[in-house]
Amino acid sequence: MSSNGEKNLVEGNPKYAESFTQGDLALPPSQHYTILTCMDARIDPKSAFNIPLGSAHVIRNAGASAKDAFRSLVISQQLLGTKEVLVVKHTGCGMLTFKNEDAQAVVKQNKGDAGAKEIENLDFLPFTDLEQAVKDDVEWLKGKAVEEGIHFTGWVYEVETGKTRRVV
Amino acid sequence: MSSNGEKNLVEGNPKYAESFTQGDLALPPSQHYTILTCMDARIDPKSAFNIPLGSAHVIRNAGASAKDAFRSLVISQQLLGTKEVLVVKHTGCGMLTFKNEDAQAVVKQNKGDAGAKEIENLDFLPFTDLEQAVKDDVEWLKGKAVEEGIHFTGWVYEVETGKTRRVV
Repeated sequence: MSSNGEKNLVEGNPKYAESFTQGDLALPPSQHYTILTCMDARIDPKSAFNIPLGSAHVIRNAGASAKDAFRSLVISQQLLGTKEVLVVKHTGCGMLTFKNEDAQAVVKQNKGDAGAKEIENLDFLPFTDLEQAVKDDVEWLKGKAVEEGIHFTGWVYEVETGKTRRVV
Repeated sequence: MSSNGEKNLVEGNPKYAESFTQGDLALPPSQHYTILTCMDARIDPKSAFNIPLGSAHVIRNAGASAKDAFRSLVISQQLLGTKEVLVVKHTGCGMLTFKNEDAQAVVKQNKGDAGAKEIENLDFLPFTDLEQAVKDDVEWLKGKAVEEGIHFTGWVYEVETGKTRRVV
């Protein structure tokens, strides 16, 4: 049974808490923006995108999918006052490596019929062209009435170099 | 128009890239685990939970909702080999402060009928008891056939102290 995460947390968190001095930050992000990026293990949004603690919401999911982040984005903007969204996908993303039917087949192989049934209607939201996927997600968000007035930009983070470049 | 996020990124990312030395990390998380936490601006998962770069997926959404993270969790485990999930909700979470009907009303007030229509069927997934919500999410995941064999733990991060404590 893997418990690497538990071990890391239990060992490291007390040291973090010992030198923690920012316990009075407000709930709403002080710089009124949201970063939407991928769950990928190689991305450290705070350092790579220079986000001061307390200043921005950070949403992360498989592929930095705007559709999958919609609930969180609406809460961020309508209830907590953010006005800007940066969609940041990245090179080497796992979502470029499979199609829905591949994922369905892997789950069926790993988890049998019961597992396969649970995800039979799940859109894994893979994509085939990285920059186009950034553009598509920004366009999709811009088309939503609830997102009107929000400032959107789209970016690619390079896991090989640590560099981020703007796409849209 | 807010562009704080763009400014921070453009100013800070070149410095990050300049000293970046980990461009050869593998796509699958090297320590085979996933942290699911909130998008809240006051949480810095990498430092607070002691996550070495490249070692773990980090999923973040409003409230660290397991239901909302299901697509990402399945991809993390079934396609990228993670075996452990830490669900980390936090004190002072925005999801404790409203109900679905409150959110619907705010959107209607801010965005009119067109905006309200887009979110009329959206479950914002708020909760009323923090520790119970951690337990509920872990139980929900444990009940999924596709999650069988995954090691789940549930935690609360205190935004006031930087401390994290285990709930389940």
